[in-house]
Amino acid sequence: MNGAEALVKTMLASDVSVCFANPGTSEMHFVAALDTHPDMRCILCLFEGGVTGAADGYARMSGNVAGTLLHLGPGFGNGWANLHNARKGHSGIVNIVGDHAGYHLKHDAPLQADLDGVAGSISHWVRRATDSTMVASAGAEAIRVARGGEIATVILQADCAWGDSQTGPAKAQPPAQKHRPDKDRVMAAAKALSEPGAALLVSGPGLYGEGAELAGKIAARTGCRLLAPFFAPRIALGEGAVAFESLPYNADLTAEFLAGQTRIVLVGEDPPVNFFAYPGKPSTPEPAGCALDRLCYGDWDVLWTLEMLADAAGVDSSETIARIGRHVPDIETGALTAEGIGRGLANAIPEGAIIVNEAVTAGAGIWPFVNVAAAHDRINNTGGSIGQCLPNALGAAVACPDRPVFAVSGDGSAMYQVQSLWTAAREELDITVVIVANRGYQILHFELEAQGAPKPGRNASAMFDIENPLLDWVALAAGHGVQGVQVDSEEGLAEALKTASNTKGPFLIEAVI
Amino acid sequence: MNGAEALVKTMLASDVSVCFANPGTSEMHFVAALDTHPDMRCILCLFEGGVTGAADGYARMSGNVAGTLLHLGPGFGNGWANLHNARKGHSGIVNIVGDHAGYHLKHDAPLQADLDGVAGSISHWVRRATDSTMVASAGAEAIRVARGGEIATVILQADCAWGDSQTGPAKAQPPAQKHRPDKDRVMAAAKALSEPGAALLVSGPGLYGEGAELAGKIAARTGCRLLAPFFAPRIALGEGAVAFESLPYNADLTAEFLAGQTRIVLVGEDPPVNFFAYPGKPSTPEPAGCALDRLCYGDWDVLWTLEMLADAAGVDSSETIARIGRHVPDIETGALTAEGIGRGLANAIPEGAIIVNEAVTAGAGIWPFVNVAAAHDRINNTGGSIGQCLPNALGAAVACPDRPVFAVSGDGSAMYQVQSLWTAAREELDITVVIVANRGYQILHFELEAQGAPKPGRNASAMFDIENPLLDWVALAAGHGVQGVQVDSEEGLAEALKTASNTKGPFLIEAVI
Repeated sequence: MNGAEALVKTMLASDVSVCFANPGTSEMHFVAALDTHPDMRCILCLFEGGVTGAADGYARMSGNVAGTLLHLGPGFGNGWANLHNARKGHSGIVNIVGDHAGYHLKHDAPLQADLDGVAGSISHWVRRATDSTMVASAGAEAIRVARGGEIATVILQADCAWGDSQTGPAKAQPPAQKHRPDKDRVMAAAKALSEPGAALLVSGPGLYGEGAELAGKIAARTGCRLLAPFFAPRIALGEGAVAFESLPYNADLTAEFLAGQTRIVLVGEDPPVNFFAYPGKPSTPEPAGCALDRLCYGDWDVLWTLEMLADAAGVDSSETIARIGRHVPDIETGALTAEGIGRGLANAIPEGAIIVNEAVTAGAGIWPFVNVAAAHDRINNTGGSIGQCLPNALGAAVACPDRPVFAVSGDGSAMYQVQSLWTAAREELDITVVIVANRGYQILHFELEAQGAPKPGRNASAMFDIENPLLDWVALAAGHGVQGVQVDSEEGLAEALKTASNTKGPFLIEAVI
Repeated sequence: MNGAEALVKTMLASDVSVCFANPGTSEMHFVAALDTHPDMRCILCLFEGGVTGAADGYARMSGNVAGTLLHLGPGFGNGWANLHNARKGHSGIVNIVGDHAGYHLKHDAPLQADLDGVAGSISHWVRRATDSTMVASAGAEAIRVARGGEIATVILQADCAWGDSQTGPAKAQPPAQKHRPDKDRVMAAAKALSEPGAALLVSGPGLYGEGAELAGKIAARTGCRLLAPFFAPRIALGEGAVAFESLPYNADLTAEFLAGQTRIVLVGEDPPVNFFAYPGKPSTPEPAGCALDRLCYGDWDVLWTLEMLADAAGVDSSETIARIGRHVPDIETGALTAEGIGRGLANAIPEGAIIVNEAVTAGAGIWPFVNVAAAHDRINNTGGSIGQCLPNALGAAVACPDRPVFAVSGDGSAMYQVQSLWTAAREELDITVVIVANRGYQILHFELEAQGAPKPGRNASAMFDIENPLLDWVALAAGHGVQGVQVDSEEGLAEALKTASNTKGPFLIEAVI
């Protein structure tokens, strides 16, 4: 058995059975090994940003990890930005990236680059397989690391893929016990949450499922505010979900939102920080003197911490958790607006939907309506690198084949990984893509103003506006084998959403606002 | 004057007047500064691989350098792969990449990443502007470095962009004198080239213009073989061009091609190496005992070396350079083939055309016809990272507005930076895009076989074939605002090429083979 076969068997034995891929020649023996193991589901993306973003979406919704298959330094580089988003969201990913045979490296062939450097600049863990006998164990260790929520990268030299494994496959050990805060700190935090001006800011697995229930009970018991980050990696929303208050995006609004807060206990989340720095404004939004209690870091044991915190707070079965009520307004008629997209989605999404959000500026109009519709999971862009939405939707749909996925993206963002549409069609994934077409990087107009810069002139407009020519999203969809329709009225959107739900596989709606 | 304004003025004062861009909030003050300097031409690409690939194409055809404007680590990551191609082709590029304000960095905001790491893994030179007074000088130094054929990256912290420059603009010094080989080595090489079995392998500026003339004279005088790399960064071809023999791509064919060679003198090129390693085959193609004389590395002074070598060889005005003759066969009729694309292009390209090649497997059929058509410049993919073609074509068209550009790309490759079509339309660039639609990563089928792997099964086919669904390139073009047509016959291609030449701005032809 060669190294490549041992690696594939290691992945399968460790319950990693999905591999998003864009291979090349240096990965041919791994491809051949995958080919003889049909239990592994190989999914081709036509650009590596789709590969890594899909693995991220898969991790967020499956609770498991997927493999990626990448082609040397450039293939890894193409996947870098969505690895960044994954890393910021604590999604674990196992990257298998091919490199030249070890003896070939000294020749600096055209595709050779500083692969270790580019991989190391975004991965938590990198191991270069320099010998075929170490491939299986490197793969097993990468899976173990990734299951801890980290980016793990195995550099697979071609000669190690084709060389004799000797050891045969390995099996990943369970991830290490995550770090847990001291109990006395938990006790102190529970006490502090009962005092006026206290808030509990939660992220990670504290935003859905059992974690959210615990957080809701703690808030009910202590009377603290219950907060979620604006860019939650995954959060349960809609009818019946635990009611978190989401921090705003805008720096001034966030400062206002947190005014009067004297303590924020952080579980699974970093201290709040403004997305960007602005001249003359502070970097952080909390009021002066507000204590920031980092009880549990993002890569610590969030669920355990919430359990302990609930115990310490004296939570019992009588707590009444504040939950989101359902309030879905009727569709209106007339020109489509962000709010109209919100009404349309609120009426359309079924219980159990997964919504991937990269609506950027239009989100302020859309989400207030959708947040109070049917119960669903929301995935957000966690690292600010645009182009997460469509790939994440692929991964979410693969992870949850029985749940309809809605990918709601600004046009500028969606263009970044537009090739993902093709994979959605090829795999017949049930994804409704809503492109919010405002024909520009609208946020940059706001940001230019926020920076105190003058009105955009020729060069700024040349870099902010995506018109002249207009993108035709229905044509772009068709080009990738995806059906689509353009709408510019609210009733038109409602109709299109119905068509989408009756369509097998992906369907794209260009929602012009 | 703030740092951003000082930087823009530095670029303009140093004759850098084109900036391919995809900015974000952290670059707003630089955007504002660009906005008040309309002499700077800002060109938006909808993905950063387009930005860096366009800067590469601009460098190859202008002899100057362009700026890029990138948004933090993820923006740089997205541009990484085409920086790799640029680096392998010795194209100089000045990257301006924004980062958070220095005082904001400690907060690890969502977009923060190891920017220094990812930039350092591909740039020759990186400087982080940590103070507004150093921005102008960092920019000037980056331009100087880039003019030496290197990737130079300025990390522009937002506070340094908006802070007071104090110094005002700087001006780039001329690039350092490039390294030159010792004259006695040149003398020895000239002598050796006259002996049987000798070849001169040239790249860089030795493949067009005065460099190619010198190389041709040296070959005529000494009787040596005159070789060019398969992936020449830029080479003059067609009627009247100096006749280089190009190395093949395939490892076995290259070994055959070089059989009997006793010495290869290298000017501007590394020793030949097989593109990939294959089990049981050597990494390099030259015969045992063949001397490799690295007279002039790729980043040394190629033109000076060729001049000295010509002198040493005793070249005089009587040399008869072997040149390419024109031989353009008639268009045939019937189903389109790679050879038919070659005949079509050979009939269509006018003198002075620029052809960007990423045809991959189909190239073997296409280029023999085009090589002997009208005089033109050819640009090739230098780093093996697919997705170079369309962005390079943008940059070449901006650099040479009076020369028609032909971008000939495989479908799989073109998908990598498909967003570049939009920029071509927006800037009304005269680019004829020929998509060679073989509906797959055809080369991988060959490579799987070459690796000795079995026939592709379900998983390999799932990763090699781009069909189910078929890409519709005419729709993709239309989606980006580009006119296009699909052809599947040779006469249809000929007609489409005529339409393209009569169309203002870009035109796409999906050539189904």
